[in-house]
Amino acid sequence: MHNLSEQNFIQQLSIDCVIFGYRDKKLQVLVNKLNFNGDFWALPGGFVYHDEDIDKAANRILQERTGISEIYLDQFYVFGNAKRKNLNFIDALIALNPQMLLNGEKNKEEYDWFTKRFISIGYYALVDINKVVPQKTDLDESIQWIDVRELPQMIIDHNAIVSKALESVRLNLDEKRLAFNLLSETFTMKEAQELYESIFDKPFARNNFQKKILDLNVLERLEKKFTGAANKAPFLYRIKK
Amino acid sequence: MHNLSEQNFIQQLSIDCVIFGYRDKKLQVLVNKLNFNGDFWALPGGFVYHDEDIDKAANRILQERTGISEIYLDQFYVFGNAKRKNLNFIDALIALNPQMLLNGEKNKEEYDWFTKRFISIGYYALVDINKVVPQKTDLDESIQWIDVRELPQMIIDHNAIVSKALESVRLNLDEKRLAFNLLSETFTMKEAQELYESIFDKPFARNNFQKKILDLNVLERLEKKFTGAANKAPFLYRIKK
Repeated sequence: MHNLSEQNFIQQLSIDCVIFGYRDKKLQVLVNKLNFNGDFWALPGGFVYHDEDIDKAANRILQERTGISEIYLDQFYVFGNAKRKNLNFIDALIALNPQMLLNGEKNKEEYDWFTKRFISIGYYALVDINKVVPQKTDLDESIQWIDVRELPQMIIDHNAIVSKALESVRLNLDEKRLAFNLLSETFTMKEAQELYESIFDKPFARNNFQKKILDLNVLERLEKKFTGAANKAPFLYRIKK
Repeated sequence: MHNLSEQNFIQQLSIDCVIFGYRDKKLQVLVNKLNFNGDFWALPGGFVYHDEDIDKAANRILQERTGISEIYLDQFYVFGNAKRKNLNFIDALIALNPQMLLNGEKNKEEYDWFTKRFISIGYYALVDINKVVPQKTDLDESIQWIDVRELPQMIIDHNAIVSKALESVRLNLDEKRLAFNLLSETFTMKEAQELYESIFDKPFARNNFQKKILDLNVLERLEKKFTGAANKAPFLYRIKK
């Protein structure tokens, strides 16, 4: 673990990031598999320095835990149940590796710090999966994109955090033009529809969908090139500049 | 001040409540005028006990600071700028009343605790102004409904918190049927329109507004009583059960 000393971080406050990507017609989430014996899956998360804006902290944490930088993260909810503790997680780790607590006073202090009740601020982003290269750290066995509907059991309440993030994405999708971040620069109406279907986990009627999307007034249709082949191809769209 | 000892509360974390009401065709916000020399206006706010859910804390804080209970509060944003401190506020208080710091070790400790950087979770609610009776506490000189567009300069970033809350209300108004909480049980279409106009601070065209509101499919129109006078009166609406 990095240095969790209370001198550095605001106590009892964490940030967890839900990064959505889209591939093979499936909505996916970026998840770290922690580098401990046992299956410990976790969202990329961390803590806030005393002199750091929380939005900057979210970006720093994401970069430290995934290598991904320069994306726009949105706050979506604060998880503040009183029973929300790392305790079960850390107890399991210590059961697996009792040495952890036997490395002297400093570790004991870190343990106390880390086992308090934490309030976590959730941030999400939707990214073009082809434009980011997630990188694992020493903390992780691996870092993976996993289908949002096939996530493993994660630590603490991280599965609930993903559910709430998905709810926020659905509510804000149109208003914030978020969805199109997940697609390549140009895309067909069918591709947009498949994306929406993966996010809402339900089918849309083609005509209604097309009308709804065009009514958002954020897309422009590209001119077809007048070759024989292209005329049979579907129209391509992109976000208006 | 209540006991701000760090034994009781999570450090560096606060909750601030933006309570919107509607009266005289104006959107109003509930504001405490603090009981100190000088003009210190503040949103109803407070801190989270170690063993308390944040949502429950928001309700407790609202009740303690305004007497209002049993209303639904919605989280809307976390204010976490690194420079966000009570420092200027408390310095001003101490300049006005140096005795504050001279009452022994306990006050010094509270001062240190309170002057750290705080992260604040914003909650809002829309209430029927006729159904609540705000009550000031010993901390306050008064508690008042003030027109959202005529708020005084408040402590720390409380004016910015109100602006952000209003932004969230506008975004979520239709989806959550929030607006109608501000009206009496039955209301005319004209009253609903005036309410929307006060929230969005702009006029709506009557026909478009009526269509938009009825398309929400959350209102029912009451039958008119067939007296001569009532037939000239406008239709009344209420939220569907």
